Amino acid sequence: MTRFGDEGGGTSAGDDDVTPYVHKVGVPPKQGILKEIKFALEETFFHDEPLKHFKDQSKSRKLLLAIQGVFPILDWAKRYKLHLFKGDLIAGLTIASLCIPQDIAYAKLANMDPQFGLYSSFVPPLIYAAMGSSRDIAIGPVAVVSLLLGSLLQKEIDPKHKVEYQKLAFTATFFAGIIQFTLGFFRLGFLIDFLSHAAIVGFMAGAAITIGLQQLKGLLGVKTFTKKTDIVSVMRSVWTNVHHGWNWETCVIGITFLAFLLLTKYIGKRNKKLFWVPAIAPLLSVIIATFCVFITRADKKGVQIVRHIERGLPPPSLDQIHFTGSYVMTGFRIGAIAGLVALTEAVAIGRTFAALKDYHLDGNKEMVALGTMNIVGSMTSCYVATGSFSRSAVNYMAGCNTAVSNIVMSIVVLLTLLVITPLFKYTPNAILAAIIISAVVGLFDYKAMKLIWRFDKFDFVACMGAFFGVIFISIEIGLLISVALSFAKILLQVTRPRTAVLGKIPRTTVYRNTQQYPEATNVPGVLIVRVDSAIYFSNSNYIRERLLRLLSDEEENHKENGQSRIQYLIVEMSPVTDIDTSGIHSLEELQKSIQKRDIQLVLANPGQTVLDKLHASEFASKVGEDKIFLTVADAISTLAPKLQP
Amino acid sequence: MTRFGDEGGGTSAGDDDVTPYVHKVGVPPKQGILKEIKFALEETFFHDEPLKHFKDQSKSRKLLLAIQGVFPILDWAKRYKLHLFKGDLIAGLTIASLCIPQDIAYAKLANMDPQFGLYSSFVPPLIYAAMGSSRDIAIGPVAVVSLLLGSLLQKEIDPKHKVEYQKLAFTATFFAGIIQFTLGFFRLGFLIDFLSHAAIVGFMAGAAITIGLQQLKGLLGVKTFTKKTDIVSVMRSVWTNVHHGWNWETCVIGITFLAFLLLTKYIGKRNKKLFWVPAIAPLLSVIIATFCVFITRADKKGVQIVRHIERGLPPPSLDQIHFTGSYVMTGFRIGAIAGLVALTEAVAIGRTFAALKDYHLDGNKEMVALGTMNIVGSMTSCYVATGSFSRSAVNYMAGCNTAVSNIVMSIVVLLTLLVITPLFKYTPNAILAAIIISAVVGLFDYKAMKLIWRFDKFDFVACMGAFFGVIFISIEIGLLISVALSFAKILLQVTRPRTAVLGKIPRTTVYRNTQQYPEATNVPGVLIVRVDSAIYFSNSNYIRERLLRLLSDEEENHKENGQSRIQYLIVEMSPVTDIDTSGIHSLEELQKSIQKRDIQLVLANPGQTVLDKLHASEFASKVGEDKIFLTVADAISTLAPKLQP
Repeated sequence: MTRFGDEGGGTSAGDDDVTPYVHKVGVPPKQGILKEIKFALEETFFHDEPLKHFKDQSKSRKLLLAIQGVFPILDWAKRYKLHLFKGDLIAGLTIASLCIPQDIAYAKLANMDPQFGLYSSFVPPLIYAAMGSSRDIAIGPVAVVSLLLGSLLQKEIDPKHKVEYQKLAFTATFFAGIIQFTLGFFRLGFLIDFLSHAAIVGFMAGAAITIGLQQLKGLLGVKTFTKKTDIVSVMRSVWTNVHHGWNWETCVIGITFLAFLLLTKYIGKRNKKLFWVPAIAPLLSVIIATFCVFITRADKKGVQIVRHIERGLPPPSLDQIHFTGSYVMTGFRIGAIAGLVALTEAVAIGRTFAALKDYHLDGNKEMVALGTMNIVGSMTSCYVATGSFSRSAVNYMAGCNTAVSNIVMSIVVLLTLLVITPLFKYTPNAILAAIIISAVVGLFDYKAMKLIWRFDKFDFVACMGAFFGVIFISIEIGLLISVALSFAKILLQVTRPRTAVLGKIPRTTVYRNTQQYPEATNVPGVLIVRVDSAIYFSNSNYIRERLLRLLSDEEENHKENGQSRIQYLIVEMSPVTDIDTSGIHSLEELQKSIQKRDIQLVLANPGQTVLDKLHASEFASKVGEDKIFLTVADAISTLAPKLQP
Repeated sequence: MTRFGDEGGGTSAGDDDVTPYVHKVGVPPKQGILKEIKFALEETFFHDEPLKHFKDQSKSRKLLLAIQGVFPILDWAKRYKLHLFKGDLIAGLTIASLCIPQDIAYAKLANMDPQFGLYSSFVPPLIYAAMGSSRDIAIGPVAVVSLLLGSLLQKEIDPKHKVEYQKLAFTATFFAGIIQFTLGFFRLGFLIDFLSHAAIVGFMAGAAITIGLQQLKGLLGVKTFTKKTDIVSVMRSVWTNVHHGWNWETCVIGITFLAFLLLTKYIGKRNKKLFWVPAIAPLLSVIIATFCVFITRADKKGVQIVRHIERGLPPPSLDQIHFTGSYVMTGFRIGAIAGLVALTEAVAIGRTFAALKDYHLDGNKEMVALGTMNIVGSMTSCYVATGSFSRSAVNYMAGCNTAVSNIVMSIVVLLTLLVITPLFKYTPNAILAAIIISAVVGLFDYKAMKLIWRFDKFDFVACMGAFFGVIFISIEIGLLISVALSFAKILLQVTRPRTAVLGKIPRTTVYRNTQQYPEATNVPGVLIVRVDSAIYFSNSNYIRERLLRLLSDEEENHKENGQSRIQYLIVEMSPVTDIDTSGIHSLEELQKSIQKRDIQLVLANPGQTVLDKLHASEFASKVGEDKIFLTVADAISTLAPKLQP
């Protein structure tokens, strides 16, 4: 007889007992139902123990901690030092110089007047600085959300009806904030994890191209332009206008400055110390271009200019939000979409920089902060603001230390609003288009796509689905595709789990996948199969059928090799983390089927939860307590002597 | 120093080498992309190798096999013997006697004239007998689908407009068939696995109660009755009519026969040999009750009777199906819902009996058969038919051998239609109500509910959600709730996977969950954690945060016990069946975080797919090839000497 494993018999080293020591499978103490439910709820909603610090504190201290929890600024402001301010000041000025031209440009993407972009870089950063916990994020309007909001809004109201359009925009912003706040408050933040990284990469790349294409209007001075965002309509608009619609002065300005901006971007990328070059280039371009247009009065030759930016503080807009009427639902829907995309972006940025600097970020608390900032924003003439990838990176590289950099930026924007907006009158639209294009180039993350292709083909399909959905259909459909593909992946994973036939690795008592370890040998008379997933209703039938099929295949193998017939089916349950009613039914059916073929079912290493349920359902006694082992090796060493030749 | 494990060193039995033998982790040969995709597609759609028999056959043989594949009757009819027919004949006659009164009653549930129920027990069983592979299922109209169809249809068209109502019913039946056929043809049958067993139990129980309550109208002879199906509306209808709406003659007939039927059911349950008693009781009741009413002319005293059943063959109804116009979409929607519920029921029945008799059933082929039968049915004045739980059980117990019993039943129904339908004129509606109630009693599976409660609390919540949804709101909402809860369970499973801290089980080299095995001891300086799930975008952040939290907890533990600081974090990857881009990102971030604390990341037993991706992403080299081990024991035995005190 072959010498069977002694994985479970560490003590046998040194002696050669015939009956190996077999460790009993642990039957854990039964947990109460309430305890079980409590645990499940805790892990779902409070896995990060947000109230850890509140334990064993006096009441007044608890109140203080609670206030500090909502406004972290009260906590860190006490420890704020001058040497920190130096970094924050430089970073704040840098991102301000970057955000002012971007704000004006992005407002156009959302079909709003330029000042609304500036407003959104003034109020929300202040709120965030008080409530947020990220030290590096730069708050304000961003390209993708602006475009998304603009394209959703203009389906409802023509942007020419400015007042109505703005009202709906503020309503959407309000509901975006409400949704963000609610998700965070009820600790449902994990829901945004359902959008996979791959889908986001594809969506962002698609959005970058869509936004870039939209800018051809401003860059080339095309007069009549489609309202659709798909690539086919846009390219048709561009080419049908080639003979009479393009304006060569605009083209010259646009393309020259685009080249300049891309060059500075390239320089910044090559030499990380020169990060400030691409950061101030947009503002510089705006100044130069505005001056040129003013001198040459190119606007009289058909070069489109900004014309007018409202001067002064953002006016209150609470009275403009629809709280009743048919636009409430529309606003809610648009706000929900824009708010969730904004949230995904902000949380991703927050996490990235928190990991870089190794500090902890509570996703749910972030959502509350972002939500509050948009709610307040919607009442002060702002539209949906969030964290900007490019400006946050500049903020980080410029050496920001705390959210004070956002406050600095906000003050600079305020000064701009109060003093220098009239100077933007002659700023050509072409320069804004160039700024947008150079900003969204970075969203097309070619490297990430390549990595995704290398890692995981299904992820790549999801990525491409989102990408092509955005550029060929519309930005919402692309978003829908990315969500659907993300879900499909999860569902596929739980419907078709893997199974592996295990063999004994020579010179060890370890049993491993024979595909991964071709040297692993099978044990005559026994089939060892590992099920690589929890057994749930969604896969229980598949698993049963799959095991029966593996059994049939192995029986043929055994016959061909002249080995004795299979007498035991050992199911290695280590990866089976849970089992439900359907799963137990399936195991019962499996047992019935194989009993008819005179094969016995043996279970190895069922986990705590599974064991609980096997006992509760009495399936454990149907299998027989003596057929449940701690390890495969244990099972083999016990069963081997009983095998018939 | 503690003696560390030698799980990976089976050869060390007998000697005590200082450097234990460590087996290399298998790096499987890289698979081509196409091969990978092919494998994934095969497992998803063709995991049962439906074309296995087609291999290595001549062309003409392949054609024959294909025809036999579509019409299994051609295969088994050749081998059909007389002794099989005896069983089939008895079973066929038994289910016919059961189905005739049920058909008439169920047609009323669907708001159709009684003959349509009979038609649906004539055409569909014949088609199924030719195309289906289940030997035990009894085809025809069933209570739940009839009610569902009726309640959905009457929302669109008042049943009083008979012609229009029937047209929409046939349209819905047609689309139900198309959807069933399509799911099967494109091998998407696994989609119905997404409805969990628990949700089905709850839904069925709710439907049973709803159907039973609806019968109070017929049973008590209530004249004005609500059209809603929720328990509150129905009970209000019943009680507001108590003084003038009830008809005492009807009550007497109804309640007497209901008692009789329930008694026979009880007898049949107590003594399995008397299964035929409850099977013929309904027909017997109909005969007696009809005779009594005819003699006493109780219909003149307000006892509602069937009045008229159309005599003759089912008329063709192809011209009545809407293929254009606004009712197409309505029909499609209703057909989709009714068709999917019908499918779920039929497949569940087929599987149950196939497991009992141990023969194989191809779910997708079954769907094609069921779909075809409903498509043909919709063209011959039938409404949605499927497998009936109660009649299939009777069929099985009466000793059916093949689908011939369905053919026998179908012929009996045909004879009924041709000859004896006029005799049903005086059948009181109360008896039909009693038949329906006694039939649906079995759908309320109290035992299954109790088991679900014992096995799995979350399953029970899903079950109750579906149950209360059906009885308090509506049958469609109940269905929606059951689907939603089934999905929620899957999503929760993949978002919040379990993790376990492992310890060494004394006297072995096995490392197991310290919660399940309290005797397992930790290894000083090392934290061993097992991740119990594939690491995907939906859980990667959670897993990273969870591991860091476990690390912090364990560091405190170590400090309290005066052990040396943690120097290695061993992640046991056995249950990690897959990892995606987000998962690798998370591991990278985890590594960065713990490196700052001077802790090294070690991986134990990564599977084939995971290892592939770790190598593709170069994370394997970041961790270091020498930090990836076959087993935890291997890792410990290698790392232990390097631990600083």
